[in-house]
Amino acid sequence: MAAKPSSLLIFQPRLNLRLKPFIFSSSSLAFSIILRFPFPKPSFFVNRHFYSSLTAVSSAQSISDGGTTRGRSGALSPAPTTEELQRIDVNPPKGTRDFPPEDMRLRNWLFNNFREVSRLYGFEEVDYPVLESEALFIRKAGEEIRDQLYCFEDRGNRRVALRPELTPSLARLVIQKGKSLSLPIKWFAIGQCWRYERMTRGRRREHYQWNMDILGVPEVTAEAELLSSIVTFFKRVGITASDVGFKVSSRKVLQDVLKCYGIPQNMFGKVCIIIDKIEKIPLDEMKKELKVVGVSEDAIEELLQVLSVKSLTKLEEVLGGGGEALSDLKQLFSLAEKFGYSDWIQFDASIVRGLAYYTGIVFEGFDRGGKLRAICGGGRYDRLLSTFGGDDIPACGFGFGDAVIVELLKEKKLLPELNAEVENIVCALDPDLQGAASKVATILREKGQTVDLVLENKPLKWVFKRATRINARRLILVGSSEWERGMVGVKDLSSGEQCEVKLDELN
Amino acid sequence: MAAKPSSLLIFQPRLNLRLKPFIFSSSSLAFSIILRFPFPKPSFFVNRHFYSSLTAVSSAQSISDGGTTRGRSGALSPAPTTEELQRIDVNPPKGTRDFPPEDMRLRNWLFNNFREVSRLYGFEEVDYPVLESEALFIRKAGEEIRDQLYCFEDRGNRRVALRPELTPSLARLVIQKGKSLSLPIKWFAIGQCWRYERMTRGRRREHYQWNMDILGVPEVTAEAELLSSIVTFFKRVGITASDVGFKVSSRKVLQDVLKCYGIPQNMFGKVCIIIDKIEKIPLDEMKKELKVVGVSEDAIEELLQVLSVKSLTKLEEVLGGGGEALSDLKQLFSLAEKFGYSDWIQFDASIVRGLAYYTGIVFEGFDRGGKLRAICGGGRYDRLLSTFGGDDIPACGFGFGDAVIVELLKEKKLLPELNAEVENIVCALDPDLQGAASKVATILREKGQTVDLVLENKPLKWVFKRATRINARRLILVGSSEWERGMVGVKDLSSGEQCEVKLDELN
Repeated sequence: MAAKPSSLLIFQPRLNLRLKPFIFSSSSLAFSIILRFPFPKPSFFVNRHFYSSLTAVSSAQSISDGGTTRGRSGALSPAPTTEELQRIDVNPPKGTRDFPPEDMRLRNWLFNNFREVSRLYGFEEVDYPVLESEALFIRKAGEEIRDQLYCFEDRGNRRVALRPELTPSLARLVIQKGKSLSLPIKWFAIGQCWRYERMTRGRRREHYQWNMDILGVPEVTAEAELLSSIVTFFKRVGITASDVGFKVSSRKVLQDVLKCYGIPQNMFGKVCIIIDKIEKIPLDEMKKELKVVGVSEDAIEELLQVLSVKSLTKLEEVLGGGGEALSDLKQLFSLAEKFGYSDWIQFDASIVRGLAYYTGIVFEGFDRGGKLRAICGGGRYDRLLSTFGGDDIPACGFGFGDAVIVELLKEKKLLPELNAEVENIVCALDPDLQGAASKVATILREKGQTVDLVLENKPLKWVFKRATRINARRLILVGSSEWERGMVGVKDLSSGEQCEVKLDELN
Repeated sequence: MAAKPSSLLIFQPRLNLRLKPFIFSSSSLAFSIILRFPFPKPSFFVNRHFYSSLTAVSSAQSISDGGTTRGRSGALSPAPTTEELQRIDVNPPKGTRDFPPEDMRLRNWLFNNFREVSRLYGFEEVDYPVLESEALFIRKAGEEIRDQLYCFEDRGNRRVALRPELTPSLARLVIQKGKSLSLPIKWFAIGQCWRYERMTRGRRREHYQWNMDILGVPEVTAEAELLSSIVTFFKRVGITASDVGFKVSSRKVLQDVLKCYGIPQNMFGKVCIIIDKIEKIPLDEMKKELKVVGVSEDAIEELLQVLSVKSLTKLEEVLGGGGEALSDLKQLFSLAEKFGYSDWIQFDASIVRGLAYYTGIVFEGFDRGGKLRAICGGGRYDRLLSTFGGDDIPACGFGFGDAVIVELLKEKKLLPELNAEVENIVCALDPDLQGAASKVATILREKGQTVDLVLENKPLKWVFKRATRINARRLILVGSSEWERGMVGVKDLSSGEQCEVKLDELN
């Protein structure tokens, strides 16, 4: 009471821009860049008497309440104390989202699909803190993810960060649990991830990411299983192989090339990060960066030639047979056929992924329309645990963000219509019957029925309007003459049929 | 991948202490203070060759894999690069939790109960950013919540905070949406909330909080509905009125007393915060604090007398009839009878709640065993929106944390047994049949069956062990002679019955 914001609250107008989407995170999370809200109305901010009375509530109903604004009986007279009221920015912090009911329904629908698919594949759900030690995410490879770390110093002078991806936390937890875990581990998570980018306006700084990971399986059967689960997800939401595809490669392809040219293995992660920029920076700049880390001009030319290969036959010509890269990829494509998703995947040597820790197969889900950035991405990371001081376990996984997929579904007109849904709206026809209406609501709820109980004495017109808005199936009216006979009025709102039902027969 | 943590990772041993729980948040969130993990084993930390080879994976299986550790064919010889490896703290940051599968199952069970109850009551789910402007939470009333704000300065020099409660974000969103919202608003949220306390060791710094709020209803029918929903939740999880009760009062009781003594209304929030400490600090100290903010000794004595009142009859004697405090409370208790939960609630004038913004009815759920702190709490906050510069809307809500309830359920032996559950485990009896097994898994999954596909060539003993661990109902064996005939072996794992089933008859 009488509490007010004490520090400066700044109102920041926001642009309703549609910017180019961009890659964000872990196993490749592209963010969509659409700000939902147009310019917010700069109202709300004048000095106001904001502590008038504890009980006067009439002004409190100035937001649409169906035209039945009422004062409250027994209200004390206002006792204004004029205080300077500062403006509040009614938008969520820059780059973050609120989820009002309509957006939350979509989020729940999407997450439920993630969950259902994960369970079909026998994965167990896990989660980790959204705030982790900064050190967990700091690698020396020059990844974009590191430069965009949302990091802070806490009050105890510890460096902490809002997680930019989930995989390092997974690795931490697996090391912690140690021998109590049985292999293979099949875990999934749906967690919010953050990144801070200073210069850009309007870009999102958070998204939710669905991850599935398999630890303990060295064979590409694991990658094949992961790809199968993503395909299952796409099919569930109506996306076909002509909408979306996966580009697949293996880092072992590059590894083979680099080995020929004597590039030390500890440079491998850095080289991959540079190569991953192939479509983002000019070719000359990429070459320069590769030279800086010690890749010779010959090796660079060879790399670029290999990166342009788009078929396994051609790859075999270039690399020769017998290598691990080729046998892994061949096995994966053969399994894809058995799983029944070979029309979704294609070999593309230019796929490297932007995280330092991948060691084998890497893949990326892309929009065949070419408008959107990567929808999801992942790969094998057999060496991640040892970078944290644990024993390595062969592992692979993917990340799948909540932004690009929604853009794609929107474009393909596949977004579901999700409305508020309540089975019953219960209303007392007389203020004295409010208790009776509560009783009716309780009876229905005990039978598992959802009930919107009208909490005020409102005209029937208002009640019908609300019933429509919340898509109620039935209207239960509690009137005094019926109540005396132990009955209530029941109106089916789709057929319009109306009848009286005994209270104990209400279902 | 040659990436390693570059900053100092410190290993902090943790104590498995059971400390006294304490009040935390919004509408009263008590945290439980049990650290789940005993001393972590200080292994994992020696200098290691951690970039040996991209493909050598035999050491990677040192975690229990059923004794079938295998090297991988075609592994390159290790090429060690010795690097200094720093220790990683394998625990989540102090005061935060991981959710491994067993804990996640419990969290999902709890949240699903929150969701189900909210839906029975016709509430719609919403969410807000976990990171908000610090200003949203700063009030001048000396609330505990403010002192424990988990706040930072971001890279753009903005003061931000991990939300300590959800209500201010709700208010912000409602102001933003303005007239597009139809009243009453009935929203619920389940969100993670944070608080930073410097001195204590082992206390939790985050919890999840279930909130339900009604905006637009000035009458106590709204509070009655909220209490009813919490009671419904308790009943669903097996908690009875002899386990838990609600103490209910109204801030208007104090308001009446303060008005008599001429205390200005803008001091009301502060006075409430001080009074809320009644059981936490010595009485003399509380009196001193009240004097400092301008409450006279007479008023203090009167306040203390009123605070000791435990019945509405007595309250009527003390305050006289006719006031709002009394009529609100009487109506609430009468509605509780109609709803059928009057045995759960009792009047207690000492209940004030620790947030500045409450204006009317306040309530608190408590453990009748007296061992735990408040389980949940809430009340009416008709003036919150105007403190942010919006038009006020009458409002009430509650917060219900995920910690104390779990303690209570544990104590009452009501925690559910939640196990991993997979319907089928599918296994190829021959490495060449891995693709066939994938096909079988796909067929079952397309029929909505959950499947754990064995991804490696493992002995049957291992498969049965895994089947037991994941509680599989059926084992599907893909053997070559059956496969040639278009059949698979199906073993019911509870009855032990075994038969052959045609692939297209598999259900």
